[in-house]
Amino acid sequence: MSESNSSGAHAAPISIIMGSRSDWPTMKVGADLLDQLGAAYETKVVSAHRTPDRLVEFSKSAADRGVKVIIAGAGGAAHLPGMVASMTHLPVLGVPVQSRALSGLDSLLSIVQMPGGVPVGTLAIGEAGAKNAAIMAASIVGLSDDALMDRLKAYRASLTESVAESVED
Amino acid sequence: MSESNSSGAHAAPISIIMGSRSDWPTMKVGADLLDQLGAAYETKVVSAHRTPDRLVEFSKSAADRGVKVIIAGAGGAAHLPGMVASMTHLPVLGVPVQSRALSGLDSLLSIVQMPGGVPVGTLAIGEAGAKNAAIMAASIVGLSDDALMDRLKAYRASLTESVAESVED
Amino acid sequence: MSESNSSGAHAAPISIIMGSRSDWPTMKVGADLLDQLGAAYETKVVSAHRTPDRLVEFSKSAADRGVKVIIAGAGGAAHLPGMVASMTHLPVLGVPVQSRALSGLDSLLSIVQMPGGVPVGTLAIGEAGAKNAAIMAASIVGLSDDALMDRLKAYRASLTESVAESVED
Amino acid sequence: MSESNSSGAHAAPISIIMGSRSDWPTMKVGADLLDQLGAAYETKVVSAHRTPDRLVEFSKSAADRGVKVIIAGAGGAAHLPGMVASMTHLPVLGVPVQSRALSGLDSLLSIVQMPGGVPVGTLAIGEAGAKNAAIMAASIVGLSDDALMDRLKAYRASLTESVAESVED
Amino acid sequence: MSESNSSGAHAAPISIIMGSRSDWPTMKVGADLLDQLGAAYETKVVSAHRTPDRLVEFSKSAADRGVKVIIAGAGGAAHLPGMVASMTHLPVLGVPVQSRALSGLDSLLSIVQMPGGVPVGTLAIGEAGAKNAAIMAASIVGLSDDALMDRLKAYRASLTESVAESVED
Amino acid sequence: MSESNSSGAHAAPISIIMGSRSDWPTMKVGADLLDQLGAAYETKVVSAHRTPDRLVEFSKSAADRGVKVIIAGAGGAAHLPGMVASMTHLPVLGVPVQSRALSGLDSLLSIVQMPGGVPVGTLAIGEAGAKNAAIMAASIVGLSDDALMDRLKAYRASLTESVAESVED
Amino acid sequence: MSESNSSGAHAAPISIIMGSRSDWPTMKVGADLLDQLGAAYETKVVSAHRTPDRLVEFSKSAADRGVKVIIAGAGGAAHLPGMVASMTHLPVLGVPVQSRALSGLDSLLSIVQMPGGVPVGTLAIGEAGAKNAAIMAASIVGLSDDALMDRLKAYRASLTESVAESVED
Amino acid sequence: MSESNSSGAHAAPISIIMGSRSDWPTMKVGADLLDQLGAAYETKVVSAHRTPDRLVEFSKSAADRGVKVIIAGAGGAAHLPGMVASMTHLPVLGVPVQSRALSGLDSLLSIVQMPGGVPVGTLAIGEAGAKNAAIMAASIVGLSDDALMDRLKAYRASLTESVAESVED
Repeated sequence: MSESNSSGAHAAPISIIMGSRSDWPTMKVGADLLDQLGAAYETKVVSAHRTPDRLVEFSKSAADRGVKVIIAGAGGAAHLPGMVASMTHLPVLGVPVQSRALSGLDSLLSIVQMPGGVPVGTLAIGEAGAKNAAIMAASIVGLSDDALMDRLKAYRASLTESVAESVED
Repeated sequence: MSESNSSGAHAAPISIIMGSRSDWPTMKVGADLLDQLGAAYETKVVSAHRTPDRLVEFSKSAADRGVKVIIAGAGGAAHLPGMVASMTHLPVLGVPVQSRALSGLDSLLSIVQMPGGVPVGTLAIGEAGAKNAAIMAASIVGLSDDALMDRLKAYRASLTESVAESVED
Repeated sequence: MSESNSSGAHAAPISIIMGSRSDWPTMKVGADLLDQLGAAYETKVVSAHRTPDRLVEFSKSAADRGVKVIIAGAGGAAHLPGMVASMTHLPVLGVPVQSRALSGLDSLLSIVQMPGGVPVGTLAIGEAGAKNAAIMAASIVGLSDDALMDRLKAYRASLTESVAESVED
Repeated sequence: MSESNSSGAHAAPISIIMGSRSDWPTMKVGADLLDQLGAAYETKVVSAHRTPDRLVEFSKSAADRGVKVIIAGAGGAAHLPGMVASMTHLPVLGVPVQSRALSGLDSLLSIVQMPGGVPVGTLAIGEAGAKNAAIMAASIVGLSDDALMDRLKAYRASLTESVAESVED
Repeated sequence: MSESNSSGAHAAPISIIMGSRSDWPTMKVGADLLDQLGAAYETKVVSAHRTPDRLVEFSKSAADRGVKVIIAGAGGAAHLPGMVASMTHLPVLGVPVQSRALSGLDSLLSIVQMPGGVPVGTLAIGEAGAKNAAIMAASIVGLSDDALMDRLKAYRASLTESVAESVED
Repeated sequence: MSESNSSGAHAAPISIIMGSRSDWPTMKVGADLLDQLGAAYETKVVSAHRTPDRLVEFSKSAADRGVKVIIAGAGGAAHLPGMVASMTHLPVLGVPVQSRALSGLDSLLSIVQMPGGVPVGTLAIGEAGAKNAAIMAASIVGLSDDALMDRLKAYRASLTESVAESVED
Repeated sequence: MSESNSSGAHAAPISIIMGSRSDWPTMKVGADLLDQLGAAYETKVVSAHRTPDRLVEFSKSAADRGVKVIIAGAGGAAHLPGMVASMTHLPVLGVPVQSRALSGLDSLLSIVQMPGGVPVGTLAIGEAGAKNAAIMAASIVGLSDDALMDRLKAYRASLTESVAESVED
Repeated sequence: MSESNSSGAHAAPISIIMGSRSDWPTMKVGADLLDQLGAAYETKVVSAHRTPDRLVEFSKSAADRGVKVIIAGAGGAAHLPGMVASMTHLPVLGVPVQSRALSGLDSLLSIVQMPGGVPVGTLAIGEAGAKNAAIMAASIVGLSDDALMDRLKAYRASLTESVAESVED
């Protein structure tokens, strides 16, 4: 379901970007969920700090390429989500990747504490955040895609059903 | 543009809820921005802890009432955004209201650290977060409302223009 | 001594619930202590976020089922203890389960920083907290169960006796 | 309803103690609520650090005097709740008083992070915690005092009713 | 000594930029010190989030305009210093401006925790940091400007002399 | 050099106590250093929470037994050093033992944030703190024991000499 | 009782130093207590950062001048206590002065987290710490000054007596 | 390219010092990068706490030996960078080495929160900080060494080119 080539006329509605390939094991948890939900997405490495030109180009062209929601993951002084948000009017979801020394507290504060005017909807630190960014992206796209929203509802219901009441098998 | 009565057949697409009237000065900053953007919204006090039945009723009926995006603000052990998110498939945006002793760090962690499966897109602590939740809600609704998205783009452009390069008048 | 089936007319006086089966290794430390004290209890998985209906049903029926004290463990944005407390007048004890990124600081603040009106008596992060929730529950039930209180006193005395003064055997 | 003289044969079932008179403005919020609930209580200043003998005497005699639940408030390196808990089998509730430099984070950690074996049920930092300690104490005493439990239920219901849905009058 | 117009052929060797005019009271402390040291500088408002194009233009042109050192101040999710550093090989000094809710801890972590490859030399939160960024910029420029370095040495010596040994006049 | 039996008429001038045998691997680093310095000491497990009577007896009798300085190590809600200090006029040194969830931050704040009137001289978290408590105790005893002070000076000088200037052998 | 001139043959046994005159309002609380205890002391401003030569001279000469205990107060990146400790074998007590942005958490960690080999006995942040440093210094000097120790015991006893049991007059 | 002998007439322009040999694995990451950039440097162990005389000698002689920029790494109560900065007018870059208990948060605050007048340009905690200190030192030296600046620009460009857009090979 994933399309990682963004040069086509019609991009996937969800774009997952990350600051480094080392973020992929975290972000893949979200990508896998989008696969499960049957939601098309693309994936790219866009480093705010090492590839600032790619950042600008990506951010400014995303809407025209047909992207509806951007998921951006980064760690440490995590500027990617906020910088993308500064150059697009699309909703941007931020995933704080767990950092080595400060366990992602730096990532979280760098992403969530945006000044008034430029929002980043921030999810939890690490894999739970990557998964939830995917669910939230699906819920946003699903507002105008009934089939996707139905699959999302079914997924949410399956989560509920999966919670056995007893603590042990 | 605000509609605070939710009993009508067609609710506003954006619903702003908060855990206490004391959160209103913070959340009003977001409401004012939605007014400025010409985006219809409703406002309600829904306390996760003091009015749990209202919480359930609100959360389960929001989608049927026509709500598209929910903005939920709360402080301290801030459970409102996450609990709403547990009972709706709509996108939920959380605003951590600044708390007295811990300055909103407790509010932030209580809202953002949701487990995989139930997302809350979290904004900054306090008024900047309330404003940004409004902008993000407008960007989500604007994905299928071109006129609103155009007004949002104009607002974003006006922000850029308002930043004079000199440090003093 | 444990009864994990709650459908009977007379529930155990202590109910141990947790947000996920993954919390059981932590909460089991408390359950084991209740076994040691000869205090009857039930155990259930009740997820505030994935099974909100079960949460409501559990919370509203606990008192009628004969539960006297509820122990609720959860991690991350830990809403279970506070949400249960919002729907029962019974004393609720919260156990912050150690989380991956933030080591339970998020769990602790999400549980303890409840607003005025809805208390959760919070214990330490992790296994020490689970054990202490069990002891505290026993001390509460023991206020009207002299035999249990005597066993609790004996346990407390045995703790004291177990502390050898020398640092090595 | 308050009885501050503890020398009588029958103490109030709830004892509110604090490390310093300067904690009284915080703890009084809890005392006022107990008055409102019609629950008898005593109040004392017992400093773990300046009056250790009083601490020992208070803790060891509380149960014999008829106390059922102890509420202990303290700030900074707050040792009072835990030290009382080490010398009684009664349930002890701790209230972290907001400290000057660290806003009560030190008080909170000093109270809540008790080792396995000696529980302190900890409430929120500051006045909300004092109020909630009172409610929790009433819910514990109310387990064997139906009239008090009924008054507590009525109070809890009145809280719910007091939450108007509209954000402004 | 200040030149706030950057269009000239020869810019001042030190450029002080900040994310918002509201940062000027903090950053002015550094500018005043450069005046005192007789070091030429320019000042500009460059918002990473609201004026991303200005950010790119500023960062890429600074070296060609003759700037030797850049001082960048910002608060909250403070991306300005790091983003400038990503687009220039000049040394960049970051000043974390004290933020409202988190007192600049978010600003500090957002600035200092840069990934390997893109350095920002970070100073203290607030006015001390602004002053020290100015001193450090002067020490860098002074490496090839003996007169400035002499004035810097004199300033540093005057600091030492100003410290009276007695605690009161 | 160690004497762990305290019943004799003349105790060692330095007493090392700790809240649990599990603290011994940390505290032993200090004991080993006292051996190296030729300073007599005793060691005991004294749990503030599990053996409060031993705590009182130890604290009140220490001066009479000839103890000059007390080193107390504890972790989590670490009340031992402060409670000892409340019952003796001797200097008390506190060692925050590294805790599991919060890495000793709770231990540190519980020990260092003592109210005015009851001092605990607090050292670093963990083994460095245990070692430094031993050195400080020796420096205090050494004020009236010239031979010990000379051995301490020699140890301090050996530390300096041990620091090779090159980074590799 | 204070002697602020250190050139005499016989210095006071307690030396109170601080990094800046702005620390004096905090440190004066300790000085006043030493006056009350009748313990001789000197006071000096010694800035680790602005007067490093004075730091070296002070530290290396203190023991020869007759100083027995050094109290050092500083804020922010507080290096004074640790640097003094690196150049003397005398016991050094550190007082973390409350800083503006981080409320003294930076001061505390900068002082207390000393590496093994160079101890600083650290007291609480702010005035309580200054007071307690004075008490601890008196207890150290009092080990070989029975009259001072008796006055200290009397002071400690008066503290106990000053704690009225009732919460209000 | 490295010269670890500092006795020669002409020192390398960059000096890398650290508080302990145990910091070398971290600091070596920076040294390796300087090798890669062809920038001459020296390395030394200078402990602020164990070798204060070496600290003074190093700091006061660095400029005369021809050093242009000093990189100082240290952990815990990390006083080395700030103390060097207090005794030289050269730019000093600080690297917070990751500490055991507090993961380098103590190192970071001890280095970055310098008072106005004595700057330390602080980099990220750990290896990323060591690498970035090296890059920043090269950019400072490169201001008057065009060949080095060209190599730095080439390195920076190679970083950009190394970031593949796809998340997997």
